[in-house]
Amino acid sequence: MTRFEPVRGMRDYIGIDADKIRYIEFTFRDLVKKYGYVEIIPPIVEDFKLFALKGGEELRNTMYVFKDKADRELALRPELTPGVARAYIQNLQSLPKPIRLFYFGTVYRYDEPQFGRYREFRQAGVELIGDSSILADIEILDLLYNFYNKINLSDSIVIKINNIAILRKIMNNYNIDENLQEHILHLIDKNKVNEALGLLENNIKDINILNFINNLLTRKNVKIDDLRDLINDEYSNKLNIKNEIEYLIKISNLLLQLNIKFKVDLSFVRGLAYYTGLIFEVIHPSVSFSIAGGGRYDKLIELYGGLPSPAVGFAIGVERTLLVTNSFKLEEPMSIIIISLSESEDSITHSVMLARMLRDEGYKVVINTKSQPLSKLLPYYASQGFKIAIILGKQELEKKQVTIKNLTDKKQITTQMERVADAIKQML
Amino acid sequence: MTRFEPVRGMRDYIGIDADKIRYIEFTFRDLVKKYGYVEIIPPIVEDFKLFALKGGEELRNTMYVFKDKADRELALRPELTPGVARAYIQNLQSLPKPIRLFYFGTVYRYDEPQFGRYREFRQAGVELIGDSSILADIEILDLLYNFYNKINLSDSIVIKINNIAILRKIMNNYNIDENLQEHILHLIDKNKVNEALGLLENNIKDINILNFINNLLTRKNVKIDDLRDLINDEYSNKLNIKNEIEYLIKISNLLLQLNIKFKVDLSFVRGLAYYTGLIFEVIHPSVSFSIAGGGRYDKLIELYGGLPSPAVGFAIGVERTLLVTNSFKLEEPMSIIIISLSESEDSITHSVMLARMLRDEGYKVVINTKSQPLSKLLPYYASQGFKIAIILGKQELEKKQVTIKNLTDKKQITTQMERVADAIKQML
Repeated sequence: MTRFEPVRGMRDYIGIDADKIRYIEFTFRDLVKKYGYVEIIPPIVEDFKLFALKGGEELRNTMYVFKDKADRELALRPELTPGVARAYIQNLQSLPKPIRLFYFGTVYRYDEPQFGRYREFRQAGVELIGDSSILADIEILDLLYNFYNKINLSDSIVIKINNIAILRKIMNNYNIDENLQEHILHLIDKNKVNEALGLLENNIKDINILNFINNLLTRKNVKIDDLRDLINDEYSNKLNIKNEIEYLIKISNLLLQLNIKFKVDLSFVRGLAYYTGLIFEVIHPSVSFSIAGGGRYDKLIELYGGLPSPAVGFAIGVERTLLVTNSFKLEEPMSIIIISLSESEDSITHSVMLARMLRDEGYKVVINTKSQPLSKLLPYYASQGFKIAIILGKQELEKKQVTIKNLTDKKQITTQMERVADAIKQML
Repeated sequence: MTRFEPVRGMRDYIGIDADKIRYIEFTFRDLVKKYGYVEIIPPIVEDFKLFALKGGEELRNTMYVFKDKADRELALRPELTPGVARAYIQNLQSLPKPIRLFYFGTVYRYDEPQFGRYREFRQAGVELIGDSSILADIEILDLLYNFYNKINLSDSIVIKINNIAILRKIMNNYNIDENLQEHILHLIDKNKVNEALGLLENNIKDINILNFINNLLTRKNVKIDDLRDLINDEYSNKLNIKNEIEYLIKISNLLLQLNIKFKVDLSFVRGLAYYTGLIFEVIHPSVSFSIAGGGRYDKLIELYGGLPSPAVGFAIGVERTLLVTNSFKLEEPMSIIIISLSESEDSITHSVMLARMLRDEGYKVVINTKSQPLSKLLPYYASQGFKIAIILGKQELEKKQVTIKNLTDKKQITTQMERVADAIKQML
């Protein structure tokens, strides 16, 4: 006898656990639609090259990659942004900009499973394409904040932000090639700052510049006044990064006015290689990993063969967000159990018809199929949350009557079948 | 420059196409919850053996199968029933029966793509586990019918039914082993009846029995009276299939009383190998393939190492159902565009705050980011379905005022910012 389990690192969601996933999905869906975003559902399987082209080192090593029967190299998507960018180029890039898209779906990473890390998990995300303005960045941050507000987490989360263009511009000044840039950013992301600085030393010989960079990478919570000081630093001028710091000041001012809790972290880098400007992550004090993240990626669509299209977006880690969510609004309609004391065709037909009618009234209605005495069934269904039992007795059935019993206060009445819906309303 | 496309046989759903998928999903979800079904979300990737054990010949040859980095042989699920059965054994089989589960998700088949056949598509389904009664079968058929009723297709569909136990019992009488039985049923499913009869001849030497079987396999629309005649046929007696035919009579009577359009087709076999009793498919005159199907599978859970658990369920082909659906209830909230005539921080903040407030009132609110004159923007947004424009002028902003313009009748008023929601209600 074989016994089967879910694939390592993957899991089943059943009942309340599935409802929690849907609570996040539907809260997100309702909100983003009100921001004017439309849904995109790309396939879960994509051409591997789509991710390999700019997936970042971390992703390449941790994907499900396989060949189909025609020798195509395919991958289970590790994230949705590349698929959305692909679909945008094929279907949407000739439309007036900006284009607002949202998605909800599973992604796959071949990582070692641990707390908060699965091999199959869900992301809810948006992409705002064709707009390079700071207002676009603010729209995205405001949307992310409001999502966490809707699930009552806005008081406990902080949005960590940085402008990755600062580090990119410094490296561009010294003609560090793109692959090496990605590698250095990857090292910083993995907290290997010394190793990153070691590589920078090969290209940057000025010890003062290196000290300036080293200092930047220690500043994890920078206030607006500190940013103003930084702008006036002689090395900001030499490295030509004043505009990039000015951007962080503007964003900070707007976030302050909009009451969005944030911190500017100049040491912060994201694992994905395609970011070009604003980057951000949502952090929560009770877990060590981020629960959502995103940023601006102005070059990705061009890289995929599309027209130059600035873009910004984020992905919410659904399972990670659930780990820190305490309050769920899970609604259940009132439950009715129909119990027939006969197994005749006539009683089956009447049970099904009655159930149809009551479901149209909005109730959840289950038809009992257990052959147990009423004395056992009624307490059982009461314990399962059913509020009303409708009992079809043999003789009553002939008179087209049923007995309705309130399982909470135990009161019951007998009534004509067509009057059941009204009678239930009066009993509640 | 590389250009990417979706993987062959897979597609993107964007905007209205995604909304149609969700319309099916949410209609299904609302309905099955009212029948007392709870959601299960199993992984999309499963151990290949889970399907190989009883997947049916057709499935084995048409799956995405691959190895992960630890040499596990995995598959993209071609259907959800095996995963649900697996999860039931692990999590639910000790609970009081019956267990009612529903699911909605993607499945994968490595078939040649054609009209109505994708390599990635969606199924919405239910499984009712732990109940062998005819009432369970009727609940499932009634639920399926009501789903099609909710999407206004109940008049055009027909549910084709058969009892696969008839053919199984005949073959069991002649000790035809299970693999050969599956192969013969597979041939009948593929309309290769002569080939199937050829194989039966190896075991069944009585020409009258073969003729009887051959005759059964031509009867595609059998009325209740014909079924009664069949019960009295001497070969029904000899082959010990009277109860199996009696079952079809009972089901037919119940479906007639419940006003569910059906036909009994004794030649009908389903592609999946695990069915043991009732089988059914939903057919629609405008397409040649079935748009939903299911049946009773009383042995599958035991085969997977679980306790003996009779079960019945169905899967709706979401894309196939959409192909024949004409009326969609796709609801959109009223749309408002906010246009600021300044790009100051103050105007960004006010736009975002105003948008937040109006979204909480239930409106869809987009903040304009295009830098075009009002004379171009207003007709553009009107053409995109926006009903109201809120305009933040520079001087108005200082007085905390905005102009509200009805894009349909062109009327406009100027009002204080905090009165915007009320003013919009009055304008509509």
